[in-house]
Amino acid sequence: MAEQQRAIRTRQTILTAAAKIFEERGYQAATISQILAEAGVTKGALYFHFQSKEDLAQGVLSEQDQHVTTPSRTSKVQEVVDAVMLHAHRLQTDPMVRAGVRLSMDQSARNLDRSGPFLRWGNVGITLLQQAKSQGELLPHIDPAETADIIVGSFAGIQSMSQALCEYRDLTTRVSALMRHILPSAVTPAVLTTLDLTEGRGAAVQAETLATPQPVQ
Amino acid sequence: MAEQQRAIRTRQTILTAAAKIFEERGYQAATISQILAEAGVTKGALYFHFQSKEDLAQGVLSEQDQHVTTPSRTSKVQEVVDAVMLHAHRLQTDPMVRAGVRLSMDQSARNLDRSGPFLRWGNVGITLLQQAKSQGELLPHIDPAETADIIVGSFAGIQSMSQALCEYRDLTTRVSALMRHILPSAVTPAVLTTLDLTEGRGAAVQAETLATPQPVQ
Repeated sequence: MAEQQRAIRTRQTILTAAAKIFEERGYQAATISQILAEAGVTKGALYFHFQSKEDLAQGVLSEQDQHVTTPSRTSKVQEVVDAVMLHAHRLQTDPMVRAGVRLSMDQSARNLDRSGPFLRWGNVGITLLQQAKSQGELLPHIDPAETADIIVGSFAGIQSMSQALCEYRDLTTRVSALMRHILPSAVTPAVLTTLDLTEGRGAAVQAETLATPQPVQ
Repeated sequence: MAEQQRAIRTRQTILTAAAKIFEERGYQAATISQILAEAGVTKGALYFHFQSKEDLAQGVLSEQDQHVTTPSRTSKVQEVVDAVMLHAHRLQTDPMVRAGVRLSMDQSARNLDRSGPFLRWGNVGITLLQQAKSQGELLPHIDPAETADIIVGSFAGIQSMSQALCEYRDLTTRVSALMRHILPSAVTPAVLTTLDLTEGRGAAVQAETLATPQPVQ
């Protein structure tokens, strides 16, 4: 058991080092040697957990959509908003999430399949929006898959713009504005009036999640 | 005159080479030597036009918002749509535009100010949306600057997602869906009914522009 925990810690150390190197160099220019030096682990330890540079990158990429369970709500549209605003808050505060998002936006990273986070976030959105549709929260013409894709794609750009302009300082303000620009096109007016789209929503949801005891895995 | 044209051609050769190298290597890893070798020009010729790697990158970055004059329309919202859909069409068809957009999304490019395209596209949007507002096309609560930023930022993400998932094949479909998701939240219903948001719009606008004689500069 202690050994298993040590393995988990080592894996995390390697991922943190990989995240740092990918962020500093970009995927294309980063090397496993640099990641090894940064992590301070043996080659054997690294290859026990990750088989290649791409494998390391996939590890960093998938950190951004881990640990994102948000509390259940009567309105499934509010759950979508909560997931989006929580992600914005984590981007502002968690370097690992930041590194994962940057990698998924690294258009010069050839030979790296960056579709995973887009598809996984898309699936979170589709599932919630299908529930929203079946309980009458969406306008009749809305296709949950298309709307989920629009939310995921536009979020990706808004975060990139916020990073380029001010290192994420205005991210939650921008994401709140994004929600106000997309949801009225997709959600019934009665549901719209009940939504909390304010910029503090992500931090509030995180606090709520941390205060709630998690089920044992 | 012939000399001036030669200089313009050389500058374009260098920019094309820089675009290719930045796209292959990412900004951080690219070097001036690689760009020199790709362009096949002398060091003197390169430094006559560009002072540094950042200067070359700014040249590539600004190519994406050049030559984007769209025809004047009665509806200024339609002009915004035309600019957006034309940009999507150019991204699908013009490697230089593609390289500029990728650079502006390269989050590992430290020491490169990538804010230019976001700000310039934002200004195009603000100007048109202010005109739209003053002639009553927008809903009363809409702030043209905020809406322009949302359109620019979300476009940036939609193109990145389309590139990651299918190398831009579905870009115009996705951008058309984006317009259908943002504009109903910002534009009066009467104007909405007059808009052409279909995916073929960008190609049609480009054909229209090419068929119209340009004013002599």
